Amino acid sequence: MEVFERTADLRGYLAPVRAQGRRIGFVPTMGFLHAGHLALMRAARSDGADCVVASIFVNPLQFGPREDYRDYPRDLDKDKELCMQAGVDALFVPPVEEMYPRGFATHVEVTGITDVLCGRSRPGHFKGVATVVVKLFNIARPDCAYFGLKDAQQVAVIQRMTEDLNLPVEVKVHPTVREKDGLAVSSRNIYLSPQERQAAAVVYRTLERTAEAVKKGERHAERLKKLLEDGIRSEQLSRLDYAEVVSWPDLRLLAQIGPGRTLLAVAAYFGTARLIDNIIVDVGVE
Amino acid sequence: MEVFERTADLRGYLAPVRAQGRRIGFVPTMGFLHAGHLALMRAARSDGADCVVASIFVNPLQFGPREDYRDYPRDLDKDKELCMQAGVDALFVPPVEEMYPRGFATHVEVTGITDVLCGRSRPGHFKGVATVVVKLFNIARPDCAYFGLKDAQQVAVIQRMTEDLNLPVEVKVHPTVREKDGLAVSSRNIYLSPQERQAAAVVYRTLERTAEAVKKGERHAERLKKLLEDGIRSEQLSRLDYAEVVSWPDLRLLAQIGPGRTLLAVAAYFGTARLIDNIIVDVGVE
Repeated sequence: MEVFERTADLRGYLAPVRAQGRRIGFVPTMGFLHAGHLALMRAARSDGADCVVASIFVNPLQFGPREDYRDYPRDLDKDKELCMQAGVDALFVPPVEEMYPRGFATHVEVTGITDVLCGRSRPGHFKGVATVVVKLFNIARPDCAYFGLKDAQQVAVIQRMTEDLNLPVEVKVHPTVREKDGLAVSSRNIYLSPQERQAAAVVYRTLERTAEAVKKGERHAERLKKLLEDGIRSEQLSRLDYAEVVSWPDLRLLAQIGPGRTLLAVAAYFGTARLIDNIIVDVGVE
Repeated sequence: MEVFERTADLRGYLAPVRAQGRRIGFVPTMGFLHAGHLALMRAARSDGADCVVASIFVNPLQFGPREDYRDYPRDLDKDKELCMQAGVDALFVPPVEEMYPRGFATHVEVTGITDVLCGRSRPGHFKGVATVVVKLFNIARPDCAYFGLKDAQQVAVIQRMTEDLNLPVEVKVHPTVREKDGLAVSSRNIYLSPQERQAAAVVYRTLERTAEAVKKGERHAERLKKLLEDGIRSEQLSRLDYAEVVSWPDLRLLAQIGPGRTLLAVAAYFGTARLIDNIIVDVGVE
């Protein structure tokens, strides 16, 4: 596995790959890799990529001033090891000044679908995500890029942006990888104390129960939202950030859900850890 | 020459060109082509492009609500003829709904350098320019793209954006093409009455005289700005929009000019026509 810190070096490595018509699969990450990231890397390989590129970049642009940019967990040595095991061919680990040199002044923004959920709780977050993803896509110029559905709104934003800006990249989405008790794997789970870790299982349990209510016929968005809220609040160690029921993938607030896909989405704090999770339910024409 | 209205069709045409390693040169325009555009097309060819792509798209996103989007001059038949004569291989003429389909929600913005000059007079203009240029770059995926220096701030914005977003395109800049009396050629010159056309020569005459003052030792930005303003206002048929003296290419307001390059820039109305022009002067270390 080759490791690159500089854009020009990664580009130099990829130019002959591209010239030979070989397919490039790309997995952008913020590092502190877990089973979710590794599933994306394996998906890239099994999807037919001849060259799998991963990036590790804790993107300051997508963190708010009171968020955990400085504390975000990092372990580059272990990450390199995991990338190698997952069959990554090229790993891009740019320093911040390589991505945002002095005088940097350009941003990409997706409006509308960023007004809800994490976009509302974390102003500027998706502008930071959209900007860095456009940069990384332009640097790696992959045929396909892989994202996990745990960050559902991020997926919606990246898909919208990729289509709107005609980025020549196929965005592929992989299901959320979970622990045995259903907790979505996340780099931020490291923040959890043992008690909080146990308590955090309430998130997926609540999502599942709410999806079950949909299955049993509940279509009223406010009642589904209340199920989500009550579920999260039933756990003493949780602090709800939001629970929302919106259309997928356009993230519109609904009175009644269906026909079509609906995103049940939750964000909640357990101690200092802000965790997000979701389930997409599909209601046919009734 | 091939003409394409659909992104997918242009891409289909260009894919084998790119696969063969042939160089693509790109000239984005709003049509109603004049000698300035044709110079860019010839520059693309003589610069070594194996395939010259031009686009004609009057981009609604870069016009303000009270601007001339609807009235902007169009003559596609004549433009096609001129493109053919200029050796264009592929002409892209997308309808608005091809570029901005229902649900379009993504914008690219360059901050800082867009706060002055046309950016101040035309809020949102450069956001529209940056967005459409990113889209067109991603559709045509050229090796080089060609822009005229008449729109100096546009050049600065596109260069900044291309660097910031790591767009894999080399931005090339061509000098302003002028009429015999110095008037910069522009599609908007068609708006001028014969009297206004004659009067409009004051713009370049004023820029030249101000550049002359720099040559003679004037370094005080306010005094240079006053020379520009007084020059334009000396012509009864003119209405000054702005006259500015800023650093090039970072467009900062200055007290003293130099060392380095300085942009002398003017925008003025003649009747309904808003014309812009500029000169870049270079002052050495003194």
